[in-house]
Amino acid sequence: MPTMTDNSLQALLPEEEIPTQWYNIAADLPDIPPHLHPGTKEPITAEDLAPLFPAALIEQELTKERWIDIPDPVRDIYKLWRPAPFHRAKRFEEALGTNARIYYKYEGGSPIGSHKTNSAVAQAYFNMIDGRMKVTTETGAGQWGAALAFATQIWDMSCEIWQVRSSYEGKPYRHAQMEAFGATCHSSPSDLTDAGRALREKYPDTTGSLGMAIAEAVEAAAKDPAASYSLGSVLNHVVIHQSIIGQEMLKQLAMFDEPQIDYLFGCAGGGSNLAGLAFPVLRENLEGRMNAKIVACEPKAAPSMTEGVYDYDFGDSVGLTPLLKMYTLGHEFIPDPVHAGGLRFHGMAPSVSYAKHEGLLDAIAVGQVEAFEAGVTFARAEGIIPASESNHAIAGAVRQAKAAAAAGEDPVIVIGVSGSGQLDLPAYTEFLEGKMADS
Amino acid sequence: MPTMTDNSLQALLPEEEIPTQWYNIAADLPDIPPHLHPGTKEPITAEDLAPLFPAALIEQELTKERWIDIPDPVRDIYKLWRPAPFHRAKRFEEALGTNARIYYKYEGGSPIGSHKTNSAVAQAYFNMIDGRMKVTTETGAGQWGAALAFATQIWDMSCEIWQVRSSYEGKPYRHAQMEAFGATCHSSPSDLTDAGRALREKYPDTTGSLGMAIAEAVEAAAKDPAASYSLGSVLNHVVIHQSIIGQEMLKQLAMFDEPQIDYLFGCAGGGSNLAGLAFPVLRENLEGRMNAKIVACEPKAAPSMTEGVYDYDFGDSVGLTPLLKMYTLGHEFIPDPVHAGGLRFHGMAPSVSYAKHEGLLDAIAVGQVEAFEAGVTFARAEGIIPASESNHAIAGAVRQAKAAAAAGEDPVIVIGVSGSGQLDLPAYTEFLEGKMADS
Repeated sequence: MPTMTDNSLQALLPEEEIPTQWYNIAADLPDIPPHLHPGTKEPITAEDLAPLFPAALIEQELTKERWIDIPDPVRDIYKLWRPAPFHRAKRFEEALGTNARIYYKYEGGSPIGSHKTNSAVAQAYFNMIDGRMKVTTETGAGQWGAALAFATQIWDMSCEIWQVRSSYEGKPYRHAQMEAFGATCHSSPSDLTDAGRALREKYPDTTGSLGMAIAEAVEAAAKDPAASYSLGSVLNHVVIHQSIIGQEMLKQLAMFDEPQIDYLFGCAGGGSNLAGLAFPVLRENLEGRMNAKIVACEPKAAPSMTEGVYDYDFGDSVGLTPLLKMYTLGHEFIPDPVHAGGLRFHGMAPSVSYAKHEGLLDAIAVGQVEAFEAGVTFARAEGIIPASESNHAIAGAVRQAKAAAAAGEDPVIVIGVSGSGQLDLPAYTEFLEGKMADS
Repeated sequence: MPTMTDNSLQALLPEEEIPTQWYNIAADLPDIPPHLHPGTKEPITAEDLAPLFPAALIEQELTKERWIDIPDPVRDIYKLWRPAPFHRAKRFEEALGTNARIYYKYEGGSPIGSHKTNSAVAQAYFNMIDGRMKVTTETGAGQWGAALAFATQIWDMSCEIWQVRSSYEGKPYRHAQMEAFGATCHSSPSDLTDAGRALREKYPDTTGSLGMAIAEAVEAAAKDPAASYSLGSVLNHVVIHQSIIGQEMLKQLAMFDEPQIDYLFGCAGGGSNLAGLAFPVLRENLEGRMNAKIVACEPKAAPSMTEGVYDYDFGDSVGLTPLLKMYTLGHEFIPDPVHAGGLRFHGMAPSVSYAKHEGLLDAIAVGQVEAFEAGVTFARAEGIIPASESNHAIAGAVRQAKAAAAAGEDPVIVIGVSGSGQLDLPAYTEFLEGKMADS
């Protein structure tokens, strides 16, 4: 391990310390309710999922094994940008006037600038292994689509993406990124699928939603025997892949000689970034080695855990997916087109929802104005312009740091900065010009 | 030092290895011709420069001292993103089918995504020390402007930027970046300066040029006693600040157990990125420890070293700056509006020009279509979308790697990847759709 000094800002983890296994929270929370078949209402089986997913991903979706080996070819790709940086945010602490020690795990250095690449590479690989050389997917802000575009070209696969209309029109640089990596991208709802055509008729002026785009991508994959569907969040196997974030973070935190986390903040849309960072910490909590308060930061525009119900619901808008036990605003809920497109989802990962329901983590809702205010402070202090989504987690940490200052406390706070905001820059202008509103 | 294995892709340099001194090539090339006063044609003096620059930067501009201490507050800011990554490009080598061992130094992880931040932080600091709390500058593609915007807000300074019109209109995300860091930005030529108004009258349809924008920023600073002018390339003090790139790279190369560089490629517009990477290597060459062939990669649209003359000329379009001995296309040369806005300059740093004139480095001209072809291959292999400017250096390396494959050789090639191309994504789309042309 590299030496750290009292003045070190970075924990430089050598690349051989990239995790060799993914962590599966289902081993430690075995009672997470299963997904149900939408017709029979029975627990979903591997056979049910076979039309959509390759065998290895189905196995990961259903298993309760704690550790899953990361194949060497996947780990070799991770080495292009991992271990991801973990920083002490000293200048941010000073800007906030807090005695809290604030750290952040930064996933914005990945090929597309967000954590989504972690699962995309794994999903592309397991599809390739099964000979499924085409994948379809949905994307909100565009991070997931771009991540899958990058990942599929590694193994010469093709990739077709439906992007939520508000993001497709508002974030043109993201199409360019998907295209730079060789994928094709449609605005959703499109006229290319039955689901899309029906949604366009029902909601002609819709700005789209993740649920709608999922319905289109699922339909396209189901109709093409050579294609798989690929999802960027929510499902267990996605959450499992993201566990490398938290595993690395715990090693890096130890390099700073910090034995404890008091508060951990992650943004939560579908839940994969929060879970990736937090579930390895939750395991520490469950085993009595830590007592970290884990806080999911939702957007006020899609507050599934703070205002939704914990019940079975569809993952998409039309009712094509398995039924998932989760906090949901209802699968027909269409969030306002706020800038954090990656958080505009009506539900929440079943594993995250279960942990919340069991009191193992908390959730707060953050408006986008508060989020961007925190993001600008962070950017000017730390030299990283965070993604719109990440700003919600930073805002949660700001609330806590200010509370700590008022209470004379000095907690250890860890923030998940899920991505870079370079492609969200127009939203920063809107905020700085005072034109941003909460929904 | 962290352990490296045969399979390592990254040389993780601990942050205490960030250089503590800048390197000044003038100590080893003492006969670099001095800048001349435009009126008297005598070597410029510190007094001549005092209206534009703070004392420390003038001293750096004129000194022949080899090593210049980096102030702690500047080095503390460098620690936000440095040491910058240095990677073995194994997947890129495979994509090219070469036995060359290719390495790249990546400056795209800085707060604004390019190497420009290295000098911006230093310049802002030395201005602040002198109580000059406002700086003006020009910017081409926008990297330098954004870098200075970031740097000035650290010390609560104000920053006014003139951006080349073609970039101002074609790259709106860059204004947003400058604004996110609190600066103001004008399209150049503007109607805010005498120089701008004269240029708009003479060339009403101009797409602008760095020379024009420099003239405007210099005039604005000269007319405001509380303001300094700040330049992002060309001058000696800028080149000196960038020397941290090459100093870090040499340490990182040694971590890979590589005692030699056979070829080094850097993009060259004003010359600061090339010089930053290459001058510490040139020192190794001059002292007999290395025998690296250094290649400056110019754009075909502004080929100062490959097609210009080595003579005294102005740095700006109007004739306000000192006369600089450099390779130049003439200060009235207006490059075509190619995407690599940061390379659209009629001249070249006097230090780089002198080294070229003395045969200590070579120069090649690369068209933007060839540059983007190399950039797409690099992006898909390495997971980094390079800046338009950086693509020229990558294209130079591709030429060499292919020549090496044909000759059955396996040289060590180092590429300077000066920045991230996330804000250049529309240019990638233009290339991929076959709509990009060389000038």
